[in-house]
Amino acid sequence: MRQRRVPDVVVNRLPLYLRVLSEIDVDHAPIISSYELGERTGITPGQIRKDLSMFGVFGKQGVGYDVSILRGELRRILKLNRIVNVGLVGVGNLGQAFLRYGADRQREILSREGLRMRAAFDQDERKIGRRIAVVEVYPVARMPELIKKLDLKIMILTVPAGAAQEILDRCVASGVKAFLNFAPVKLTVPAGVRVHHADFTLQLESLAYYSREWEGNEEQTNIESGTD
Amino acid sequence: MRQRRVPDVVVNRLPLYLRVLSEIDVDHAPIISSYELGERTGITPGQIRKDLSMFGVFGKQGVGYDVSILRGELRRILKLNRIVNVGLVGVGNLGQAFLRYGADRQREILSREGLRMRAAFDQDERKIGRRIAVVEVYPVARMPELIKKLDLKIMILTVPAGAAQEILDRCVASGVKAFLNFAPVKLTVPAGVRVHHADFTLQLESLAYYSREWEGNEEQTNIESGTD
Repeated sequence: MRQRRVPDVVVNRLPLYLRVLSEIDVDHAPIISSYELGERTGITPGQIRKDLSMFGVFGKQGVGYDVSILRGELRRILKLNRIVNVGLVGVGNLGQAFLRYGADRQREILSREGLRMRAAFDQDERKIGRRIAVVEVYPVARMPELIKKLDLKIMILTVPAGAAQEILDRCVASGVKAFLNFAPVKLTVPAGVRVHHADFTLQLESLAYYSREWEGNEEQTNIESGTD
Repeated sequence: MRQRRVPDVVVNRLPLYLRVLSEIDVDHAPIISSYELGERTGITPGQIRKDLSMFGVFGKQGVGYDVSILRGELRRILKLNRIVNVGLVGVGNLGQAFLRYGADRQREILSREGLRMRAAFDQDERKIGRRIAVVEVYPVARMPELIKKLDLKIMILTVPAGAAQEILDRCVASGVKAFLNFAPVKLTVPAGVRVHHADFTLQLESLAYYSREWEGNEEQTNIESGTD
């Protein structure tokens, strides 16, 4: 049977499952229940079973999932079972920080997981040719050529807000379909192209909920609606 | 009635609802249905109604939610109806990028929403006293004093992995209960303290799913389980 398109929220949870599974020593714990996976991800066991069943992945009733098989399935579903080459545009403070962060992660986990940082691009001539962490900085003008040559599948945008749309359009024209955008701006994309916004503000806002005393939180969750 | 503790996944969705509501011109669209809110957030209308009902917030049957009231309720639930002071520790590349990013966002949205970046801390004496965007850099030794004086409720950790746990412990000892951690390391925290990990890798991994042709995605979602 062919399945319908999987909702984005489900896809976004898969890396979290994979992360937890990757941390498990299979020799000591070859099987994981949806309950345990729930404990370690903060997602309900029912939701986890539902998410995985969307990809035709089912655990053994009353036993759980085979950790190493489930890991393999998730890598395959996420296309992380082969190398996914990543580029970055905009080598300012954030771009440089990201490249160094990416290099640290690559040593730990990225290389295992299929993501590979391959190139950075900038307009500033003084930055061209520099190496930052594992990658070289190329001129933006060479982007179309290098997207093809290096098979860049995901582009990280750490450019100023005003430049983001134009850079994205140029990447899309060269065939890139997936972006992680750090520029605080809404981007317009054609169908079939995916942009994730790395929005720290949303994370800070949900943290605000936890920033006061727990007693206070509990009291304040009891709010009567003013909408009816 | 008193309600049970709200699941973290629900709390994490609230800022997304608030974001969408903040973008609506209330004069032209005073009411929003859970269907519209779903279209704009990617979350199902049923889930939205369930999330909001956990806080006693209900829409009018067949009509929807009053945008401006719902906005107010969400701000109150998230404690963003008063100033939430934020500090940052570690003024390296990432810390500096974050401070500049925070300042840009503050002009647009943060100040309205209650979050206020107030201070940065570093060990490096050459950085002490510098101003980066809107804040001053103080020595880490003055953290306990300034957490109290400036009423810092959320701390952003942009320190090296090896320093994160110690810095967190010192902040916790001074009463901070909420952290946004950028260091690629697991942190141990006492009950009642909340750490969000700003993990770009998870975002990149879910992007990998979208990085190939759509046809390919659809074909590959049909995977038979090997676990049973």
